[in-house]
Amino acid sequence: MEEKRIETEAPRARVEIAEIGAAEFGLVWPIFRAVVAAGDTYAYDPETTYDQARDLWTRPPARCFVAREGGEVVGAYCLKPNQPGLGDHVANAGYMVAPAARRRGIAGTLCAHSLDTARAGGFRAMQFNFVAVSNESAVRLWQRHGFAVVGRVPAAFRHRRLGPTDVLVMHRFL
Amino acid sequence: MEEKRIETEAPRARVEIAEIGAAEFGLVWPIFRAVVAAGDTYAYDPETTYDQARDLWTRPPARCFVAREGGEVVGAYCLKPNQPGLGDHVANAGYMVAPAARRRGIAGTLCAHSLDTARAGGFRAMQFNFVAVSNESAVRLWQRHGFAVVGRVPAAFRHRRLGPTDVLVMHRFL
Repeated sequence: MEEKRIETEAPRARVEIAEIGAAEFGLVWPIFRAVVAAGDTYAYDPETTYDQARDLWTRPPARCFVAREGGEVVGAYCLKPNQPGLGDHVANAGYMVAPAARRRGIAGTLCAHSLDTARAGGFRAMQFNFVAVSNESAVRLWQRHGFAVVGRVPAAFRHRRLGPTDVLVMHRFL
Repeated sequence: MEEKRIETEAPRARVEIAEIGAAEFGLVWPIFRAVVAAGDTYAYDPETTYDQARDLWTRPPARCFVAREGGEVVGAYCLKPNQPGLGDHVANAGYMVAPAARRRGIAGTLCAHSLDTARAGGFRAMQFNFVAVSNESAVRLWQRHGFAVVGRVPAAFRHRRLGPTDVLVMHRFL
């Protein structure tokens, strides 16, 4: 029985998502650093400093949200307008999940939360500008959350392992 | 004969293009303000301040170039990486032509100069993220300069006259 329990999914603690301010970005930083160091999803320079990352993810109009599971930070996302002024009805979001918390649906939970938050904030659509085609599980996940591929930019990402990699533009209305 | 001469193109003064620093952004500002106020090409908030515009167009890694014709500023462009870090091999550029200097090929001259500058700066490609489909002459001009449409984002631009307008993503290698 013990083995069988191990093979099934671990019982999930409830994931709680809350907005944070710049002063709390330390909660996100270990995840941000790990994700960026991998160089397989985000364009951010692997040498991005704490201050740069904090500004990117918390300086208004950017808003930062943290997911906790049993008190532990398991993921975070950043929500902001994709363009200024006459394009600021379209949101943009970026999601990061702690390496130890992957494959448990947290990215999907973050995405669903960000769509609700964007809708509540008056956005009319959401756009991702830089989804590496190599990140197949992410592409499928965003599609399940209603996003369509609306563009493909050749070789726009220098993937650390794979080299020049195409990047998708994805979009959905809210 | 007089009518016929009027129908031909006016003789062009030589357009000279030079890089400027933040302190010289006043040269660009009247054009920037006029273009943004029209609300038919750029997403920039029509209320963008001088300081905001100057930072957007001159703060490194952004570089700003001004085109003069007989001493008069007729256009400008901004060149910068389209993404940070692992995406910074792709340039992005934005061009503005003074209302009084339109339909004289200055946008094309700016574009050609920016492609040379980007190439010299080590960029491998150039990407435009936000070309309004309504700006048909610009779309054709960029195509003549080697750009292909690689994406189309529905209703991403609140065009001041036309309302919700699709936006093209355009790209070319250098």
